Amino acid sequence: MADLSRRRLLTGAGIAVGAGAAAVAGAALVNQDRPHPRAEPVLAAASGGVIPFHGAHQAGIATPVQDRLHFAAFDLSTDSPEKVAAMLKAWTAAAVQMTSAQEVGRGATGAALAPPDDTGEAIGLPASRLTLTVGFGPSFFDRLKLPRPAGFEELPRFRGDRLDPARSGGDVCVQACADDPQVAVHAVRNLVRIGFGTASVRWSQLGFGKTSSTTPEAQTPRNLMGFKDGTNNIAATDRKKLDDHVWVGDEGPQWLRGGSYLVARRIRMHIETWDRTSLKEQEDIFGRTKREGAPYGGTREHDPVAVEKLPADSHVRLAHPDSLGGVTILRRGYSFTDGTDGLGRLDAGLFFLAYQRDLNKGFIPIQRALAAKDLLNEYIQHVGSGVYACPGGVASGSYWGEALLNQA
Amino acid sequence: MADLSRRRLLTGAGIAVGAGAAAVAGAALVNQDRPHPRAEPVLAAASGGVIPFHGAHQAGIATPVQDRLHFAAFDLSTDSPEKVAAMLKAWTAAAVQMTSAQEVGRGATGAALAPPDDTGEAIGLPASRLTLTVGFGPSFFDRLKLPRPAGFEELPRFRGDRLDPARSGGDVCVQACADDPQVAVHAVRNLVRIGFGTASVRWSQLGFGKTSSTTPEAQTPRNLMGFKDGTNNIAATDRKKLDDHVWVGDEGPQWLRGGSYLVARRIRMHIETWDRTSLKEQEDIFGRTKREGAPYGGTREHDPVAVEKLPADSHVRLAHPDSLGGVTILRRGYSFTDGTDGLGRLDAGLFFLAYQRDLNKGFIPIQRALAAKDLLNEYIQHVGSGVYACPGGVASGSYWGEALLNQA
Repeated sequence: MADLSRRRLLTGAGIAVGAGAAAVAGAALVNQDRPHPRAEPVLAAASGGVIPFHGAHQAGIATPVQDRLHFAAFDLSTDSPEKVAAMLKAWTAAAVQMTSAQEVGRGATGAALAPPDDTGEAIGLPASRLTLTVGFGPSFFDRLKLPRPAGFEELPRFRGDRLDPARSGGDVCVQACADDPQVAVHAVRNLVRIGFGTASVRWSQLGFGKTSSTTPEAQTPRNLMGFKDGTNNIAATDRKKLDDHVWVGDEGPQWLRGGSYLVARRIRMHIETWDRTSLKEQEDIFGRTKREGAPYGGTREHDPVAVEKLPADSHVRLAHPDSLGGVTILRRGYSFTDGTDGLGRLDAGLFFLAYQRDLNKGFIPIQRALAAKDLLNEYIQHVGSGVYACPGGVASGSYWGEALLNQA
Repeated sequence: MADLSRRRLLTGAGIAVGAGAAAVAGAALVNQDRPHPRAEPVLAAASGGVIPFHGAHQAGIATPVQDRLHFAAFDLSTDSPEKVAAMLKAWTAAAVQMTSAQEVGRGATGAALAPPDDTGEAIGLPASRLTLTVGFGPSFFDRLKLPRPAGFEELPRFRGDRLDPARSGGDVCVQACADDPQVAVHAVRNLVRIGFGTASVRWSQLGFGKTSSTTPEAQTPRNLMGFKDGTNNIAATDRKKLDDHVWVGDEGPQWLRGGSYLVARRIRMHIETWDRTSLKEQEDIFGRTKREGAPYGGTREHDPVAVEKLPADSHVRLAHPDSLGGVTILRRGYSFTDGTDGLGRLDAGLFFLAYQRDLNKGFIPIQRALAAKDLLNEYIQHVGSGVYACPGGVASGSYWGEALLNQA
């Protein structure tokens, strides 16, 4: 840690300068004094808060989870694969520029970008570990007459779903994550600008606080129910689990190998009701203590979960791999608060994001189990939904979806 | 800076540990290497990121501006001043606890709070410079049959206003600011919980990035138009300007002295249209350069503004004190992005907050001038509005509005 730049530490909110593989490898270096729930690995990476865009997998899946999210789902306004390819090419160029810039909003020459090349609100901000991750919904394939991956279709309806079409679906999704919300918002907005005439935003969602992590943390961040519900997540260092449960392998089409299926669910929490529930009842519902986050039968958050010690219909027990024949997903959700609902209640909850190799061995069986019995269902409701096939990593010189669109 | 705690610097997003007067006084100490637009004064304050709640003025007005906002307007569900006083007393106790805790969500004994005393989602987070500021709308006085301050009434309708009643007004407002959004959201939510049965949320707004500051910064943060529009703000160190333009003096009722009038405006930006406007046109509209933020006629952001050198109907010229006989306000606005508007456009803009001693020598003449001629009006629309009388500082042992409610 000797190289830790004093200046960088002193420059405010965008200080989490750990980046990519270096940050993951260095996770054990920090938090030895006192654990902190928001502490991502902070290293004096020479990259200055840059997570590489190119690689075997898209950034933003197994890479360290940033603090803030702007997620947008787009509808295409064209049936032409050529026009869509042109947009994705331009998006990729912009993404490379935005994610690699030491300062967002400056071009390769170091000069600040200006309209029409950039909207300008992020000039001078550090890259803030920005990642941009793209996926294609089932309707993308139908619209462009491209072959869908086998079995890839809209999610089934789950018991209790109350989905708003205006917050569901979309032909293309973009997940923008960064430690500075202005950097994430800026990125989506510039893709909107570039996509004008080819795609328009169908819905979008801001998330203000991550609720899980892919890097070992002393304590998992809390969701808006006050619980740590992202504890047993797949770690970025666990290549076997990633290969088994997250990355699509030879079973998928070429363009999807090394990619993943993304499920997005806007889960509204009835927090006013929850807040009038006793501590004991809340803990029974999760199967974890609230303060420490320890599973029933354990004393510390990271103690192993013994599902037989948890209440029968508790959230953690129902969703645990041991209850579902090993089913596991990589979670990457964010808390949201979007004002009020017109009835004097906060419109708040969890914007759930999960990546998996196979939806039928991932979100679908988990959500079937939860929808049927989860004690938590009294306090939550799924109000938005999307499912997307996210292509593998983008090689330098290529663009998002190139191998797929070449089939058109 | 020798006492700078290494641990605190390493603990993620909530690192801006500057606090209150110490931070203001120390503003000159930082940013000597390279200016950073998000850099608030960061000091090794022994207070650990705590801005004192008690004092001559409410915190959250002249104190250093934090990065994130949750603003909520409440409607009373009672006409009883006694019930309202009881709520404000309980709110004050909670506010003292939440703003002074070294870790939010821990009580005086250091034990983590749990339901029903706390909703729990902020356990373990640092205080993050949380401030809570309360104001009373004109309807508060009518409802409780209390004497309104002379001339205090709803704002006049301005040209171009398109106000949504569901995002306007409210009997009581709470402005929660913190460097960690989870801390700001937690604070409002706990006041909602405590107020249950006496008041309910009418509307609320999250802001993700501050657009102005009360502490001298090397560079002002940019708004979502990409411009620095908070440059000539009143500084926390400028006691004369604060006394002249922000704090209510002897002209006001006793309870309001040392307090201020707050105007909140939700200003939607038509950013898709803006983003297709040329750099030259954008700069002419503001009267400042985009990259540097220099006023026309100058070369650096903080160069003095010579209004006669600015385009006649430019935003900066129209709103400048020299154009309005010295009219000045303290701005404290935040950028927002709230998903989409159903027409494929981002619902984004500025949640404008301004404090002033006298509305008729503050927001009202400024907005009259802007509404009549501002070139920016083509790209913005005021869609929500509120005005509130914020009482003076709370003394230890007292509570928000005590002196006012004692008149009932």
